[in-house]
Amino acid sequence: MIMEKALSSVEVLPSKSSQVTAVKVVVQEPETKPTQRGKRVGFVLVHAGAGYHSESKAKEYKHVCKRACQKAIEKLQAGALATDAVTAALIELEDSPFTNAGLGSNLNLLGEIECDASIMDGKSLNFGAVGALSGIKNPVSVANRLLCEGQKGKLSAGRIPPCFLVGEGAYRWAVDHGIPACPPGIMATRFSLAAFKRNKRKLELAEKVETDLIQLKKRRQSHEKGSSVMCSACGRPERPVMVGKGGDQIELYLLENDLGTLDTVGAVVVDQEGNVAAAVSSGGLALKHPGRVGQAALYGCGCWAENTGARTPYSTAVSTSGCGEHLVRTILARECSCALQTEDAHQALLETMQNKFIGSPFLANEDGVLGGVIVLRSCRCSAEPESSQEKPTLLVEFLWSHTTESMCVGYMSAQDGKAKTHISRLPPGAVAGQSVAIEGGVCRLESPES
Amino acid sequence: MIMEKALSSVEVLPSKSSQVTAVKVVVQEPETKPTQRGKRVGFVLVHAGAGYHSESKAKEYKHVCKRACQKAIEKLQAGALATDAVTAALIELEDSPFTNAGLGSNLNLLGEIECDASIMDGKSLNFGAVGALSGIKNPVSVANRLLCEGQKGKLSAGRIPPCFLVGEGAYRWAVDHGIPACPPGIMATRFSLAAFKRNKRKLELAEKVETDLIQLKKRRQSHEKGSSVMCSACGRPERPVMVGKGGDQIELYLLENDLGTLDTVGAVVVDQEGNVAAAVSSGGLALKHPGRVGQAALYGCGCWAENTGARTPYSTAVSTSGCGEHLVRTILARECSCALQTEDAHQALLETMQNKFIGSPFLANEDGVLGGVIVLRSCRCSAEPESSQEKPTLLVEFLWSHTTESMCVGYMSAQDGKAKTHISRLPPGAVAGQSVAIEGGVCRLESPES
Repeated sequence: MIMEKALSSVEVLPSKSSQVTAVKVVVQEPETKPTQRGKRVGFVLVHAGAGYHSESKAKEYKHVCKRACQKAIEKLQAGALATDAVTAALIELEDSPFTNAGLGSNLNLLGEIECDASIMDGKSLNFGAVGALSGIKNPVSVANRLLCEGQKGKLSAGRIPPCFLVGEGAYRWAVDHGIPACPPGIMATRFSLAAFKRNKRKLELAEKVETDLIQLKKRRQSHEKGSSVMCSACGRPERPVMVGKGGDQIELYLLENDLGTLDTVGAVVVDQEGNVAAAVSSGGLALKHPGRVGQAALYGCGCWAENTGARTPYSTAVSTSGCGEHLVRTILARECSCALQTEDAHQALLETMQNKFIGSPFLANEDGVLGGVIVLRSCRCSAEPESSQEKPTLLVEFLWSHTTESMCVGYMSAQDGKAKTHISRLPPGAVAGQSVAIEGGVCRLESPES
Repeated sequence: MIMEKALSSVEVLPSKSSQVTAVKVVVQEPETKPTQRGKRVGFVLVHAGAGYHSESKAKEYKHVCKRACQKAIEKLQAGALATDAVTAALIELEDSPFTNAGLGSNLNLLGEIECDASIMDGKSLNFGAVGALSGIKNPVSVANRLLCEGQKGKLSAGRIPPCFLVGEGAYRWAVDHGIPACPPGIMATRFSLAAFKRNKRKLELAEKVETDLIQLKKRRQSHEKGSSVMCSACGRPERPVMVGKGGDQIELYLLENDLGTLDTVGAVVVDQEGNVAAAVSSGGLALKHPGRVGQAALYGCGCWAENTGARTPYSTAVSTSGCGEHLVRTILARECSCALQTEDAHQALLETMQNKFIGSPFLANEDGVLGGVIVLRSCRCSAEPESSQEKPTLLVEFLWSHTTESMCVGYMSAQDGKAKTHISRLPPGAVAGQSVAIEGGVCRLESPES
């Protein structure tokens, strides 16, 4: 990969709200020696979630991002479509027990796993999605199959093929289309079961304390503090939240959702022809209500991919992560894609995250707005503008941005020997949910040699 | 209601595509004597679907629209919120056996009823939705309850309340929140069961013919025509569609979806304070795959409501109807709402239907683009601009537009004694899926007398 430019270090940008501190943190990429110079077969950017990635697990998160990139590039090198490459990356991310997608997903209130996933093809603009799906190891493969079947045209008797299936119906459709069923017991891991038990205990404690609070209010007594809770995962005291008003306030301990483990996964891909694709997959919030569907299944919210067209000078692909309800209300994936049609991708994404996400009127009542995006945009250009030899290249700009404490990403071009990975973090002092981190780079993919 | 202006008769507008004939058909409204002049408590516009409304059932469709308007106005007169008024209208529309929502909904492939519904509050910008919900008589009441619960803030232990629930989980949530369960047997009507049987027969025939076609191709024989099918509902020969290519083409008979019975229902409301709300409810496509979720459940696609704000000079409310997949891919409700922020509401809606719906690059491969919208926008203004007496009034513009053969609407202001209803039809010669009809009116709601 040839790094065209690498954006500079920390920069504090002005913002309308005093609560919003936009911080631009960009890593200077070391230039790598291209291993297959001249062989342009695409680029992939993946994420293992915007949330909180502990230092202790950083190695695992980076490792799965690296493997996901490699899988996508292998597919592209074998001549696969952008949608197949993005699916391959997602399957690798879903199969990791560390991510909140597929295997090891968060358990819902009843201790079940229900997954959301979606995929979009920038060439056909088709979309496939599943919501609250149980019993299938790789939800993204069902979403991709829905997309593929949708592209075949109408079903018998002129029926319109579905693009979004949920629950039991989605499961039946998948099995009917040859996707193997997976017993739900296999999907839960030692980690996810332990997290479920911790969360259930916290919920019971919280509900007991809240019941006490109601009784307290009835008796019009002054407040009492809840007993201190230690995190069973790391042993450190947990961040409490205040519940109630005025003198009746008491401390409560949040579920691991709010401690930052929102690690939905996703990927964006551009192939040799310049076609883009995007996908996203999530196990949803811990202890969510059964049947709850989040942004990962919803059109415009979880992912977006759109090839260059009459009204769109750039091909764009976006995948989001974070608090589903925040990403849904702001239709963030599509919003980012639209914004990226202006000249300065970095500025466009930063403004979108500030004005259309943190500053969105649709989230005015939220304490903090938690999410992250990976974006990719590409356009054809000449390799050496001043040269008479018009050798067309593909200019790929890639960025990630988040309001959560951290976001783990990986990226790779078909010209690279291996993927690069990085855990992006908000700088010290920046408040999660109120600040934006943004990083990225540019690479130029040359034409394949004939 | 005081009719401010009524737009003039038939007008053929220029269009970019030769296939698109935009036709503006506007009914001249007779001025009604206001029964409660000076009592400004709001306005409601409802629809009983964009699709095909037979002359034989026109009376029933109009009657249910009238009752739905009355229910919403009664709520507004009793001081209810816009969301409660819009819910009341929807319940009336869902309870009609003639509409494809709630009672009498289309049956899916397995002969079950699974409903989608959503609601949006323009004041809080909150949203509630259910998808593939069985066993609840009024899906919109669950959507409204999700919206109400979401407005109360976080659940115990800091959990984010769900805004979108599907399937069994949605059913359990509804019952846990005191919404009575309804045995699925009660939801199916004589009409819906008869339509299911007809559709199943057509599907079997289609699949047999398609299997024959494959065998035919194998034998490289010339084509045969399928036997003629009469509609069991009305006895007339049905519109066939050609399947296969070249010499292998044969005729097939479409399901009632494609004959135009896409009668999703919806409503938009503005209350005395100028707050808007929108809702939509649908039984989905006939013989849909179980678990299929359409636009009626999806954020930005089925309905949209947004009060006037810093960036939005008008309050807008939109509800859509038609082919779910077409409405989803174009995020049509939100698209209309955004467009309505420009000065000429009629022109903005027409251009949206032409360029962002029929002409959408997201539907480029579709034979015809089927859908309809009702929209309402309001702003505060002075009653008599030249008068020194500044008596604030609410100017309400309301429009409906469709690409389907017909659309049934009703509307009423709190100052009217009864609702007006109308079945809007494409003019003779216009092709459904390629032409746009647009109609509407304006009314001025005066301040309540103290």
